Amino acid sequence: MADPRFDIVGIGNAIVDTLAQTDDDVLVRNGLAKGGMMLVDEAQADKLYNDMGQTIVVSGGSGANTIVGAASFGAKTAFIGKVKDDAAGHEFIHDIRAIGVHFTTPPAKDGPATARCLVFVTPDGERTMNTYLGACQALNADDVDAAIIRDSAITYLEGYLWDPPAAKAAFIKAADIAHGADRQVALTLSDAFCVGRYRDEFLGLMRNKTVDIVFANESELLSLYETADFDTALSALRNEGVLGVVTRSEKGSVVVTREETRAVPAYPIDKLVDTTGAGDLFAAGFLAGLARGKDLADCARLGALAASEVIQHVGARPQANLLDLARQNGLLT
Amino acid sequence: MADPRFDIVGIGNAIVDTLAQTDDDVLVRNGLAKGGMMLVDEAQADKLYNDMGQTIVVSGGSGANTIVGAASFGAKTAFIGKVKDDAAGHEFIHDIRAIGVHFTTPPAKDGPATARCLVFVTPDGERTMNTYLGACQALNADDVDAAIIRDSAITYLEGYLWDPPAAKAAFIKAADIAHGADRQVALTLSDAFCVGRYRDEFLGLMRNKTVDIVFANESELLSLYETADFDTALSALRNEGVLGVVTRSEKGSVVVTREETRAVPAYPIDKLVDTTGAGDLFAAGFLAGLARGKDLADCARLGALAASEVIQHVGARPQANLLDLARQNGLLT
Repeated sequence: MADPRFDIVGIGNAIVDTLAQTDDDVLVRNGLAKGGMMLVDEAQADKLYNDMGQTIVVSGGSGANTIVGAASFGAKTAFIGKVKDDAAGHEFIHDIRAIGVHFTTPPAKDGPATARCLVFVTPDGERTMNTYLGACQALNADDVDAAIIRDSAITYLEGYLWDPPAAKAAFIKAADIAHGADRQVALTLSDAFCVGRYRDEFLGLMRNKTVDIVFANESELLSLYETADFDTALSALRNEGVLGVVTRSEKGSVVVTREETRAVPAYPIDKLVDTTGAGDLFAAGFLAGLARGKDLADCARLGALAASEVIQHVGARPQANLLDLARQNGLLT
Repeated sequence: MADPRFDIVGIGNAIVDTLAQTDDDVLVRNGLAKGGMMLVDEAQADKLYNDMGQTIVVSGGSGANTIVGAASFGAKTAFIGKVKDDAAGHEFIHDIRAIGVHFTTPPAKDGPATARCLVFVTPDGERTMNTYLGACQALNADDVDAAIIRDSAITYLEGYLWDPPAAKAAFIKAADIAHGADRQVALTLSDAFCVGRYRDEFLGLMRNKTVDIVFANESELLSLYETADFDTALSALRNEGVLGVVTRSEKGSVVVTREETRAVPAYPIDKLVDTTGAGDLFAAGFLAGLARGKDLADCARLGALAASEVIQHVGARPQANLLDLARQNGLLT
């Protein structure tokens, strides 16, 4: 088999983030569950926006953040996601292409606007997200370019794709094509509430071998196995027979397979500003490491490094060249 | 005379910034003069945008940044500036009102889009700006709300207002109303190239007593008096009979009147990220200090504190509550 053209192709919701630093009061006043991602309609989004302070607008989307991060590490990447042909859509397309990601999904010409995520960042650095899915709801199996999937070593899919109605079909189609071409499929569980909505389906994806690699944070993993005990959940994940990558914020990360367990510490930081994108960038570093043939612990170190960069500023896209950062830290040459 | 309703009203170009961290090569390749502000048309803006990396979109505009900063210090503020009724215009209005600035200038219903500034931030933290003035060109004397000007202790005007054709008339009208109500008028020289374009007019504004307070950075001051010697330029400014406030980046600032000269050091920082808005936020702190009746050195310290906050992240709007920051640093109660 020829070397694939891409190390990683991501499929995810194509979203532009609007972030504001805010007090906890605003969360309480608006009934927002801290640390979570809630789906909102346009009217709710407008109401929340009116209660946000000074904002910063940055392209986002969990899977897109991961793919952009991997590209910043020097990986060859592509992304599939649906925006509308509007100002926010143009910004999303500009930004993902600017870092060298191959992106050719045609924007929707009509229908709802490009997806927005209103992100409330509290003084503790935690982010609380409210997503208006908009044009993402138009993503369907026809948007999955089979040639790109076949030509990618890893197809990376976000659990959030279970939210828009037709994206699940795109997900399954992409996984089938990838496995048909002897490639790997990775899934991020995305969010503990998202896991709550689709627990049985996510477990099914592991058990019927639709996915080979699973990314989760601690609360997602606990939600998946409906337990409060981390070791219980980790053992359950190990027994799924996937490569499991679990992030635990400042406690670092744990990588499990049936054969081995590797724990890697978090990277030290000067100041926690905004955790938005921490998990996405961890996955970016991990996948970029896999693409470079690194062992699992080094992949996790690259993930920790990328996460440490993104949580020290507002917004989920890296502001540093991650390949340079990895070289400075002796993780890549 | 009753206490004014506002401490400061600003009139300026209402701009949304698009910032990208970039290499020096991009400046060279596009013929951009590092550290300056260049006016561009829509086609040039599109071409430059296509050569920018991952962007961050944040409301900007020199005078607007100052007014928002002063509001963050707790000052009572208003702003006059022209956006279009489009997505960027809505963002500008949302952001300036979100921090409590009184803003009622009606957006343009047709004509060019809301102004954009493409900001290239190089690894040394310097910013190079390219402004498409768009809807700012529609700002005219009719937009100057006489009641607001009369009811503001200080009217703050940016030198950049000399660029759009009808804004100069708005500037002069506002200064006349302010002085008619026995208020003060402040001017920022904005940019060394801007000073080059309008040197005689800016000197005239001081000499015919249109302005009482002048903000400049070192290069603007040198450009104003066409000298390479800082002390020569500072003496010339002192002799104008205005309150002169000169910022010198890491060398701190100097405040001059005919009677006194006060030098204040810069605030120490951890890491210089992006100088965009440094001068704007210095002015914010200084004006907020004047509004609180602080002496000139304390006003300059407040300016230095605000500048130190804004240069440690991307974007020209403060990300911290500046009143809290001033209290933590013992500058305000």
